[in-house]
Amino acid sequence: MPIYNAPVADMQFILHEVLKPAETGIPGYDELDPDFTVAVLDEAGKLARDVLAPLNRVGDTEGCRLENGVVRTPTGYAEAFRQMKDGGWTALDCDPAYGGQGLPYLMQTAVGEIFVSANMAFNMYQGLTHGAVSAIHAHGTEDQKRTWLPKMVTCDWTGTMNLTEPHAGTDLGMMRTRAEPQADGSYLITGEKIFISAGDHDLAENIVHLVLAKAPGGGEGTKGISLFIVPKFLVNEDGSLGERNAVSVGKIERKMGIHGNATCVLNYDGAKGWLLGELHKGMRAMFTMMNEARLGVGLQGYAVAEAAYQNAVAYARDRLQGRSVSGQGSTDGPADPLIVHPDIRRNLMDQKSFLEGARALTFWGAHLIDRSVRLGDAEAEGLISLLTPVIKGFQTDKGFESAVAAQQVWGGHGYIEDNGMSQFARDARIAMIYEGANGIQALDLVGRKLAAEGGKPAMAFFHLIRGFLKENENDPRLEGFVEPLKQASKDCQKAAMFFAERGMKNPDEALAGSYDFMTMMGHLCLGYMWARMARAAADALDAGRGDAEALRTKIATGRYYMLRHLPATALHLARIESGAGPVMALSADAF
Amino acid sequence: MPIYNAPVADMQFILHEVLKPAETGIPGYDELDPDFTVAVLDEAGKLARDVLAPLNRVGDTEGCRLENGVVRTPTGYAEAFRQMKDGGWTALDCDPAYGGQGLPYLMQTAVGEIFVSANMAFNMYQGLTHGAVSAIHAHGTEDQKRTWLPKMVTCDWTGTMNLTEPHAGTDLGMMRTRAEPQADGSYLITGEKIFISAGDHDLAENIVHLVLAKAPGGGEGTKGISLFIVPKFLVNEDGSLGERNAVSVGKIERKMGIHGNATCVLNYDGAKGWLLGELHKGMRAMFTMMNEARLGVGLQGYAVAEAAYQNAVAYARDRLQGRSVSGQGSTDGPADPLIVHPDIRRNLMDQKSFLEGARALTFWGAHLIDRSVRLGDAEAEGLISLLTPVIKGFQTDKGFESAVAAQQVWGGHGYIEDNGMSQFARDARIAMIYEGANGIQALDLVGRKLAAEGGKPAMAFFHLIRGFLKENENDPRLEGFVEPLKQASKDCQKAAMFFAERGMKNPDEALAGSYDFMTMMGHLCLGYMWARMARAAADALDAGRGDAEALRTKIATGRYYMLRHLPATALHLARIESGAGPVMALSADAF
Repeated sequence: MPIYNAPVADMQFILHEVLKPAETGIPGYDELDPDFTVAVLDEAGKLARDVLAPLNRVGDTEGCRLENGVVRTPTGYAEAFRQMKDGGWTALDCDPAYGGQGLPYLMQTAVGEIFVSANMAFNMYQGLTHGAVSAIHAHGTEDQKRTWLPKMVTCDWTGTMNLTEPHAGTDLGMMRTRAEPQADGSYLITGEKIFISAGDHDLAENIVHLVLAKAPGGGEGTKGISLFIVPKFLVNEDGSLGERNAVSVGKIERKMGIHGNATCVLNYDGAKGWLLGELHKGMRAMFTMMNEARLGVGLQGYAVAEAAYQNAVAYARDRLQGRSVSGQGSTDGPADPLIVHPDIRRNLMDQKSFLEGARALTFWGAHLIDRSVRLGDAEAEGLISLLTPVIKGFQTDKGFESAVAAQQVWGGHGYIEDNGMSQFARDARIAMIYEGANGIQALDLVGRKLAAEGGKPAMAFFHLIRGFLKENENDPRLEGFVEPLKQASKDCQKAAMFFAERGMKNPDEALAGSYDFMTMMGHLCLGYMWARMARAAADALDAGRGDAEALRTKIATGRYYMLRHLPATALHLARIESGAGPVMALSADAF
Repeated sequence: MPIYNAPVADMQFILHEVLKPAETGIPGYDELDPDFTVAVLDEAGKLARDVLAPLNRVGDTEGCRLENGVVRTPTGYAEAFRQMKDGGWTALDCDPAYGGQGLPYLMQTAVGEIFVSANMAFNMYQGLTHGAVSAIHAHGTEDQKRTWLPKMVTCDWTGTMNLTEPHAGTDLGMMRTRAEPQADGSYLITGEKIFISAGDHDLAENIVHLVLAKAPGGGEGTKGISLFIVPKFLVNEDGSLGERNAVSVGKIERKMGIHGNATCVLNYDGAKGWLLGELHKGMRAMFTMMNEARLGVGLQGYAVAEAAYQNAVAYARDRLQGRSVSGQGSTDGPADPLIVHPDIRRNLMDQKSFLEGARALTFWGAHLIDRSVRLGDAEAEGLISLLTPVIKGFQTDKGFESAVAAQQVWGGHGYIEDNGMSQFARDARIAMIYEGANGIQALDLVGRKLAAEGGKPAMAFFHLIRGFLKENENDPRLEGFVEPLKQASKDCQKAAMFFAERGMKNPDEALAGSYDFMTMMGHLCLGYMWARMARAAADALDAGRGDAEALRTKIATGRYYMLRHLPATALHLARIESGAGPVMALSADAF
């Protein structure tokens, strides 16, 4: 049975030594003192370790079942979901006007990591609800908010997002689901939606589907799309549940992973729905959910890998196999533990240095959202908009790689399902695909975000790094950090210049390098976070704060990343500068 | 349902334009004219496409079942196995003295790729048998060969290899299985073996287990290990099957993939066995199987990826989604096929350029074995010994990556089991683990093979590349090939020098970089093969031989690999030269 322990000490380090909430002036951040955050994270960690993590294998093994039109979740899910609700965990950062606790998104993110690490498939039931709550909160009428939010904030009712159709995935303009306006202002929704996570289940009294559909008069393509609230059960005037709406589960998909979450085909046969936001502006409303969802998926990328890593470390310490070649770390046992072997170390260091960097980047991203939402800081909004595809794409790619590396430590035993390492890899795999496959993230980054606002957010990002470099370039404590960061930043800027120059004439010149750019930007972001963490750790050491051994470990782990991973930007730059020619050289039938 | 078509044209190109068997002087190679090989490969392709590939999903979905101590293979396997035997496909390169066809190992390899691509799990039943046949052929007495080989060559009886025990994986010295000598010269074998592929099934009359066990008097560790022939059914004097031996199936493992192959726990309770080869020299005998198995696994790495690639290409051509940004390749349909998009192209080019390079390397490796075995060429033997861990480790790493990339082309549909793309990734994953996890391959390469015979094979390898470079450096047709190959070769030699200098004092300095070295050697090998293929394609074009369009595609694909993948050697070299310090910086409890 895989283990999981919330990395609370590392989270505390990022929160209080790196981001320092109390000094930011962001409303609500003054609450986030170390005692408060450690209490919340410890409590979340207990729920994760004792309740959610033990159900992770159960969910994988049993999966969800469709019985007489109703989806049954795995054994134990209902009780765990009740505990999650009772603990108030579903409402952390929701609007207090609708029953939320109003905490910053930063805390929601830290707690979210813990729950995802323990049980990704389970946590999606509330995760999707959170996205739906945000969309209704941002785009709903007062009446809609009063009707739906209080129950959804508590997860008495859960939410879903319905975009994909059999022939319309990335290309939503091709969708066929129709919305017919009714005399009472409602719409009748008809069509087939697929890949609906948490599309049906037995954990909540009601399920509130947010559904994209085409209403008459909107024109072709995505312009005709509107967003609708379509509940599983209609809601009476007094708030009680009324009759069943005309939405049914066609089937549950058999998937590679996240078996504990029901991925449904939903058939809408004239189901009653209500417009959310403006007519024919559904894409915009949906993006409220999508952007949040993309950051959430970027978090999944490393959170699952964190759980895999913990089990790889445990196995590397326990499993006796072979002798240390250098004699270092040799034991009296029949053999030495795997962890003495250099290549096992390399593997674990790759994982650890990625995970801690990704955690810092994700927390910083959450902090940028708080800054944008709570302070109306336009630069923060631009930055997080720029970095969202990087966080989603890079962290899920590397998170999967990291989970696979963790599985590798277990050798043949990692391939056996009972040991749970395969599940981490299979679960992590979806994060590279959903909420926009990573190729789409790269397209979004290079084709849209890089040039947004005349390139202002991109310039602000590089400016931030230059500022850090300037401030710290002569700090001997940051040896091994400053130079690689400078070089990686230069490489990324060169790539951006290349796109600007060549992509104008032929967009293929930019798009052929988009995936490499997303990856190098990911390395740069992690390098920047590692440099900030190293600086913070050095400061704490000098001030005699915290666990000196842990702080030295932090710096050594960062040095590893800077030395062994950051130089990858040069390779990606070389690829980008080789242009579209080699990528597009073949005719389509030559493959 | 996934498709599969044997890439016969590409195989013919490698065979007859690159390796040119008729010109090698290797006994048996004169048979391999284009008409003969195309006939064999086409026939294998038919069996693969019509019989094996359709069973691939069946095997994955049904898996194997243990019923009353007997393993049942998936529906259709028995009939397909009969067709495989009847076609003589199990005996291609076996000794004619025992019923084989005596073809070169090169042909066995080409046909093997086709069968593995179509159905990896199914093909393992005969693949393991082939390894056992080789071991008995190399180490058995005349009597043993007469008893076992004729039935095994036809796969009337299949074979297995029994190494691993619960507490002894890589570290075989810790094994506990015992062999007690009996008065009649036989042994009684007692112990538990795990992860036994094709360990039991209903496809053959008998199963011949080759089992490592400790016989008295051999001393500690691997020195005490001997190899034994332990059949499921004892064989009577007249060759008929006698009583059931005391070996039973403990369980079948639930695995991430290759569900169609029964991975068994085998319990030996005083089972009757006969020594194969010399007493206490079992490891040596086992390596006959292991080396062959490692090349076979290296082949699996790209062969499964080839099948995944074909299905990614088919989907990229069929699936309409989005519009070409550059307008190139735009269609009249509601959207353009995925294959117009630059990032999809990048993905497919990554796959294609890896696959064709790996095929060439694998075929060249097989040719080296033929040269070594049939001509007694010591240099060829040294080369293939050096390259075996590279072929195994690099090709399975990149093959898995490639299968995952193919799955990515399918977007969300790639995560749904019914479409088969997940299976390719799950099946490919095992190849990185079994027959020595890839970290062990890296250790074998750097810790053993690089310095073997005073470094002679390594020098011969680099000499070969230098020779090619010298011969072709001024050939304008090879622009884009010569320089990257030269640079990559330099990088690898520098790394080897670093190991030689620093590893002497502290082996960790070499082993911390072993995985990077394996990977950069893999790139160099593929770069070398691509340069040879480009040269061969250019020659054929000049001579007006073959399909000109296909030859130009070959050169363009190679250029892509040289430009976008070969420069990775610089990154790996930088990592290696950063030494063991960063890798070993943390104490074991700091993870």
